[in-house]
Formats: sequence, C-alpha cells, structure tokens
Amino acid sequence: MAVGDIPFPTMPALDGVRLGTAAAGIKKPGQRDLVVIELPETASVAGVFTRNAFCAAPVHVAKAHLAACREQGKAPRYWLINTGNANAGTGEQGMHDARESCRVLAEHVGAQPHEVLPFSTGVIGEPLPMEALLAGIAPALDARACHAAAWEQAARGIVTTDTRIKGASVDVPVGAQRVTLNGIAKGSGMIRPDMATMLGFVVTDAEIAPALLDRLLCEAVEHSFNCITVDSDTSTNDACLLAATGCGASITRDADVQAFAAGLQQVLVSLAQAIIRDGEGATKFVTLDVVGATARQEALDVAFTVAHSPLVKTALYASDANWGRILAAVGRAPVADFDVERVTIDLDEVRLVEGGGRASDYTEAAGSAVMAREDITIRIDLGRGDAQATVWTSDLSHEYVSINADYRS
Amino acid sequence: MAVGDIPFPTMPALDGVRLGTAAAGIKKPGQRDLVVIELPETASVAGVFTRNAFCAAPVHVAKAHLAACREQGKAPRYWLINTGNANAGTGEQGMHDARESCRVLAEHVGAQPHEVLPFSTGVIGEPLPMEALLAGIAPALDARACHAAAWEQAARGIVTTDTRIKGASVDVPVGAQRVTLNGIAKGSGMIRPDMATMLGFVVTDAEIAPALLDRLLCEAVEHSFNCITVDSDTSTNDACLLAATGCGASITRDADVQAFAAGLQQVLVSLAQAIIRDGEGATKFVTLDVVGATARQEALDVAFTVAHSPLVKTALYASDANWGRILAAVGRAPVADFDVERVTIDLDEVRLVEGGGRASDYTEAAGSAVMAREDITIRIDLGRGDAQATVWTSDLSHEYVSINADYRS
Repeated sequence: MAVGDIPFPTMPALDGVRLGTAAAGIKKPGQRDLVVIELPETASVAGVFTRNAFCAAPVHVAKAHLAACREQGKAPRYWLINTGNANAGTGEQGMHDARESCRVLAEHVGAQPHEVLPFSTGVIGEPLPMEALLAGIAPALDARACHAAAWEQAARGIVTTDTRIKGASVDVPVGAQRVTLNGIAKGSGMIRPDMATMLGFVVTDAEIAPALLDRLLCEAVEHSFNCITVDSDTSTNDACLLAATGCGASITRDADVQAFAAGLQQVLVSLAQAIIRDGEGATKFVTLDVVGATARQEALDVAFTVAHSPLVKTALYASDANWGRILAAVGRAPVADFDVERVTIDLDEVRLVEGGGRASDYTEAAGSAVMAREDITIRIDLGRGDAQATVWTSDLSHEYVSINADYRS
Repeated sequence: MAVGDIPFPTMPALDGVRLGTAAAGIKKPGQRDLVVIELPETASVAGVFTRNAFCAAPVHVAKAHLAACREQGKAPRYWLINTGNANAGTGEQGMHDARESCRVLAEHVGAQPHEVLPFSTGVIGEPLPMEALLAGIAPALDARACHAAAWEQAARGIVTTDTRIKGASVDVPVGAQRVTLNGIAKGSGMIRPDMATMLGFVVTDAEIAPALLDRLLCEAVEHSFNCITVDSDTSTNDACLLAATGCGASITRDADVQAFAAGLQQVLVSLAQAIIRDGEGATKFVTLDVVGATARQEALDVAFTVAHSPLVKTALYASDANWGRILAAVGRAPVADFDVERVTIDLDEVRLVEGGGRASDYTEAAGSAVMAREDITIRIDLGRGDAQATVWTSDLSHEYVSINADYRS
C-alpha cells in the first residue's frame, strides 16, 4: 500500500560516481541487500545523523570516519550500506563489526579504513551477520557502474519495509553551466523528525567547500526529513549524506548557493514525501500547514501534536470528517497562552473551525468530500504571529498494525 | 476486549448521597446516558479539569460554578453528567446549553443554577441534544437512590466506548472510626496525562476542609490519572471531582490526612488502571517503572516516550520480544547528557539491556515468555539519580484502529 503514483526517475550518470549492489543474504536470500557507493578523490562530503542516544554502531563509526577524513582534507570515498540488520543495540561487538566491514572494503580497493563509511538498517539488536556481509563486498564492488540502472539497483538495495524504491534528481543552473543532484532514500516506518528512520544518499557533481556543504545539508534536512512523521519513533540509525564530487561547476557565488540550496531542498523534500507516501500502511498523504505562530518551533509543536495523534490518524484512515479530534489535538499542543478564539482550521478548501468551535458554514458533506481524498492538507492558523511550518504525515491503518506486529516473523 | 478480570465492587451507601440515572436518548435509545449525583449541604467539593486549550463548554461552566460555590461557602450539590455528546467545540451555543441544563435541574430541586456542575463526554463538535437531555432530568431525579445498585447504574450511565464499568471503594481508619471512599470513572480512549479522557467522581463521607480537599485531590491525580496513557490524546472534557460529605469523621490530624491520602490514591489508581485495562483494543496491561532519574519529570518523560511509541505498542500486541524498539524509544526520550552505558531495561524478571546493548545472558526464549503475558512490567533504570515514576499503558491492536476508525458510524 502506498499513496499516489511516483515513478523512480532516470538518474543521469555523474563523473567518478559508481554504485554497486549485491545480494549478500543478510536480508532474505536473493534480495539485494548490500550497496557500495564510490566517489572520486575530489569529492567533499557532509552528513547528518540520528540524535537517538542509543545510536547504532555504524552511526558512531561513520561519524568518526567522516571527522577523520575531514581532518586530513580527504573525502570518505566509499559508502557501504546494508539492509536487513541495523547493527544497533549490539554493544562492543557491533562497533567491531562496523569497523571490520570498513577495513575489509578498504583492503579490496586499496584505501584507508576511515575512507569507508558504514550504514545499516533493519532489525535492531541482532548481531550483524558478518560472514555474509563480508562475502558480499567483492560482488558489490565488481558490480560498480555509473548508469541509471546502477542508481535504481542501489535504491532497491537499501530498502526494508518500503513497498517502493525512492529517488529524486534535479538540475540546477550555475552560471552558464548546470549541476545535477541525484538522491536515493529508504524509510517507511519508525519515521519522525530528528531524521526519520531513514537513510538518504545525495550526490552532486558540483564543487562545494566542506563547510558550505555542511550548512546546506543541515538547512535542507531541517525543512524536509525533519518535517515528516509516520509514527513518532526516531530510529537509532538515521543518516543523510551529501557528496559533492567537485567534477562540475563550482558553487561559490551567493546566487549559485541559493539556487543550489533550492535544488537540494527540492530533492530532499521529494525523498521525504516519498517516504511518507510509502509510510507503513499509509492510505493518505497529509500535509500539515501551521501558520500564524509566534515562532517556527511553536508551529512545529502544533503540527507534530496533530500529526502524532492516533485519533486524528485513525479518522483520516476512516475518511471520517471527525474534525473535533483535530481541534482536540491542537488544543493540547504545548503552546502558552493559547487563545482558541483566534484559531482557524481548514481541511483543503473547507473551513472547519473558527471562533472556538465549528465554523458556521461547515457541513458534514463538505468535510466528508475532502476526507475522501488521498492527498489532504490540514491548515491551522494560530492567529498570533508570522511564523509557520509544514509537516507531512500519513494515517494509521490496520495495515500499519499488521506490518509492525509481524515485522520480525 | 479488556485485560484481566476486575469485578465492579459493592459500594456502600453514604449518608446524604443519592445517585439517579436515566435513559434520555442522547447516546442510543434505551441506554443509560444521564446521571445525577446529589450531595448533602454539608459537603465540600474539589475538582481538577483538562488542560486542553479547547476545553469543552461544561468544563468552563463547572469550573465557574465550583468557584462561585466556594465563594459563598457552599457545595455544588448536584453533578449532572451526560454521555453520548461532549458539548465540545460547540462555541457560544455550547456554553448556553451547559448553563441551561444546570438551570433546569436547579429549578427541579429548588437550588441555584451554580450549585449544579455539568459534565459531558462523547462525540466532539455536535450540538448537545437539549430536548432529550432536559427531558431526562426529571426521570434521573426520580430515580435517586443511595444503594449499591444506584452506584453501579451511575457507573454505567457515564461510559462511552468503555467495554466495562469502573468503580473502586475503600475504607480508611480515622481514629476509632472509619471513613469510606466510593469512586466511579469512565474512559478508554483519548487517554493520556493531564487527566486522560476521563470523568471520575469520588465521594467520601469524611469531613475535609475545601483547601485540604483541593490539595489531596491534586496530589492523588498526579500519581494516578496523570500517569496513564492509551493513545497520547488529551480530551477536551476531562474532569475528576472529589466530594467529602462531612457526615462522617473529620480529617484534620496529620496521621489521618496521610491515611486518607493513601486511601484516595488507592481509589484513583484502581480507577486509572481499570481505564487502561479497558483501553480501546487493549490486549495487554503494561506498567512502565522508570527509576534512577535525576527528577520525577525526567522519569515521566522517558516512561511516556516508551508508552507512546507505536512500535513498542505493536510489538506488545504481537507478544514479540522486539526489545530493540524499547531501547530505541528510550534513546529518543528528551533527556540531556544521556549515558546509555548506564541504562538497564528489564521485562518483568528478564534483563533485556545493559552496557549499551543486549544483556549478555538474554535469550529470545526468556523474552518471549514474558511478552506472552497479559500483565507486563517494563523497568528502565537510567542510572543517574534517585527519582522515579510509574506509568500505565496498553498496546496498539487492530481493534484500536477499528474502534477509532468506526467510532462515529
């Protein structure tokens, strides 16, 4: 089940970037579950990671390796991603396994272990099946290619409970030239801000200094992956990486930085929305626009309170215009001195709430007509300021329960 | 569906306290949906109410009437409760309707309108069916009685999606005498702290000064109704009332206050737990004991983060010892400087997590044996202080989705 029809884009090849995928037997026999992404020596790389205190071993190792490369003015040229096992909650053994997989890959390609970044996703708390994983590295390296099919196979090689693969590609003009951004991502459950449970890998052929790359990635994540929620759970393994190969146009002028930032945000929002559309058991894609707040954080607080409400989510699933549940969720959001008289709530073009209660011209028929749609926008105007935030979420269905009650079996 | 077997207790009659119930046709034809509780003139009354900003009209009116009585040194002697309609999100009309129902009841009994407190629960956002409600007041008054059956009928007359009625009764020694506390409550969904979506009515024959009654009620609610969650939603209508009729022993000595406070907490915890055991779609009753925190609020934050996690709740539903989800939820709790190495997590007698990962002697068989139980305690030791908190919750099942996707139909 997934909401809307989003085809996987055709990703253009990027100079010096190769992707290789293998079926290592970590997930299920015959399924692609190991991916290597190779970058040229000229690349710079930025990353943001989960803030879960129990973050997984590969997150620790990837952060340390990225920092070590930065110190040497090098790029972490190899990204090694496995699905089927998160290597989280695995203690010292997990740290050892993450480092060992980097070491083995580095040995194959003649690099230093810290030039390899490890990423894992899947079940938490089981030891990484090292024999299978290590045996899969050579086949994945052998499969390295730069064409569109390699991107698509890599997108397939990182998914867990996803029902479809997720990619986005945009072109950005830079002076007389153009640069490309290719992104792939995975994620459909344990999704919420502070990175959603997701892995995202974005590569551009632009040339961008590391400090600028860091800033651009943080800002874009703040308005994309940090604005989605399926079920309010933040994973132990979230990571979003951005590499600039440096083979194409250089991004330094303010206008180019702005254009690139917009393109990057477009890619990340596309991937973030694709994750929500593929949210576990999702039958609806819901945009929460909160405006009129005194601060962005206040708008986010209200949006997430509504987005996390099981009662709102089950009403969406039932296509039931039970707007009282939205009102009740807004009313319990952590907002000081809340004047409910000034709040308006709209469901697409239909006004639900004004003056502290049901809008005077609201009809059940109008509300039900909107709730029957697959794509719905809930717009909440707090009437107290100029700040706003947008959050995307899905509904809570029987299939969500089935998927998560049966995941390990 | 409900967890465990809890019979409704036999409530002793309390001097001057009468309860009358009617089927007014507000909920469904023939179902009890209107309750009047009558107190003697000597009573003192305390109340705590929802903190939802969109609080319902009856909450506004009940608070105002309670305050007006206090000012006059009187008790609000009549509590009028309807189920089937929450009179929330109903604007000015809702305020008028709540006041009008008080006025009509007052007229019947020769009291002032502010001596009547209104309470409503049910669907949000629909106008209160005033004709039916007002017509039900006389039959409810005619049915007033003090015997155990009247308490049981009142408990039945306030429920919504509850699958069973909820009551608790305890005796507390006061010097050579004894005082009794009788409590009834309703609630099974839209349940979380800041009162859970619930109504609770507790009456004792003790004599207690209003200021002391306020304090005792607040403290007991803090450790009972504010420590439960089914689905993280706080209702617009929550209220818990405590009346001391003043017909029995006087509570003034410290030792008696302590004994009474313990009895009151026992009643409220029993009612709160009964609400969780009857949580919408509940198949498990889960106690979250968080210890070793630096402050009670920190312990509550961790407990509620785990209790609200849909992934933990679906794993509980599936009886799946997917302890990684518990670890991930603890890891994303809002705790500063979290040292995961010091955290231990136990499922009843089985140690799941220590040293930042799976406990060394943990076995899947041991975890699964605990998860198969109906009553489960998850104990989380943060290892950083002496504060603790206990929270009770239920699991997330297919039936929860069914109940809330179909509630209005």
